[in-house]
Amino acid sequence: MNFLEERILKDGIVKEGNVLKVDSFLNHQMDVKLLDEIGKEFHRRFADKKVTKVLTIEASGIAIAYTVARCFDVPMVFAKKSKSVNVDGEMYTAEVESFTHKNKNQVIVSKKFLGKDDHVLIVDDFLANGCALQGLVSIAESAGATVEGIGIVIEKGFQIGGRVIRNLGYQLESLAIVDAMDAKTRTVTFREQ
Amino acid sequence: MNFLEERILKDGIVKEGNVLKVDSFLNHQMDVKLLDEIGKEFHRRFADKKVTKVLTIEASGIAIAYTVARCFDVPMVFAKKSKSVNVDGEMYTAEVESFTHKNKNQVIVSKKFLGKDDHVLIVDDFLANGCALQGLVSIAESAGATVEGIGIVIEKGFQIGGRVIRNLGYQLESLAIVDAMDAKTRTVTFREQ
Repeated sequence: MNFLEERILKDGIVKEGNVLKVDSFLNHQMDVKLLDEIGKEFHRRFADKKVTKVLTIEASGIAIAYTVARCFDVPMVFAKKSKSVNVDGEMYTAEVESFTHKNKNQVIVSKKFLGKDDHVLIVDDFLANGCALQGLVSIAESAGATVEGIGIVIEKGFQIGGRVIRNLGYQLESLAIVDAMDAKTRTVTFREQ
Repeated sequence: MNFLEERILKDGIVKEGNVLKVDSFLNHQMDVKLLDEIGKEFHRRFADKKVTKVLTIEASGIAIAYTVARCFDVPMVFAKKSKSVNVDGEMYTAEVESFTHKNKNQVIVSKKFLGKDDHVLIVDDFLANGCALQGLVSIAESAGATVEGIGIVIEKGFQIGGRVIRNLGYQLESLAIVDAMDAKTRTVTFREQ
């Protein structure tokens, strides 16, 4: 069991409806030492890749992208959620459906910050059905950039997102893959990696 | 002139309507070395304070809070924007008007992560009319926490936010205070600090 799986068992809370609350250390309150470890671990897993930029989506992805970008010593870019089409300058856009908020957002990245010479590592905190991630991949592909890999902190292995991305041929590294949760017994089952 | 003011003159873009675009290094693409410097500088300015938690608001504030929290070796908490009142558990809330998006958001922080024993350093990337910042102060005060200080990366000195916060007696440290901008001549005038 790695450092993240241990932390999930210690401080994660399993709720009805396959909800895993990690808001005490990952996506509301954030443990900076854990974030530092997460950055180092993704750097180790993608050490053989030539990464020029780390790409994520607001909001909680920003801390993940920062810690990873520090380790690679490259800039990070975060896609913005925008309901408006009134965006300044030339933008890459993707439509992203939010499972949690039951709405659609347009996700935008300025063309100034992503181009065909970029080698992109995409990161995010959670992967479930994969809509946000597919939007980020679509934006990177629109830019003509090379997607070197995808780093996810917690993947819900029982939802479709991870399988779709792996089937598409991307190297997807998830620090913890949750294959099952039980709110009654408060157990979390991780996939052996 | 400090490192941030130099960077603003080098890479910031002045637009009509008193808009200062810093999206190439601070709030869309992010320069991680600059963020590291920002963290160290806030740590230096609030070195005599007992800080137990760094508080900010999503989205771009998250990177600022992370770099500052690293330097103080404390957790960070980011307030979430939520249009819904259907929030899980007990929350501190504040209503925040967005100048940019011309709408109102409810801003929430879980009561689990802020309490009367906390000594809070509030940080954000921008301060203009101060609505977001006033919401964060209100949340910290609701929690009974002590606000040890407020750190802002770029303050628009010609808008009211900074004056209101200083009049209220808080120690507000802004790394750059822009007193005037001119889109025609592309000049930025910083306040002497």
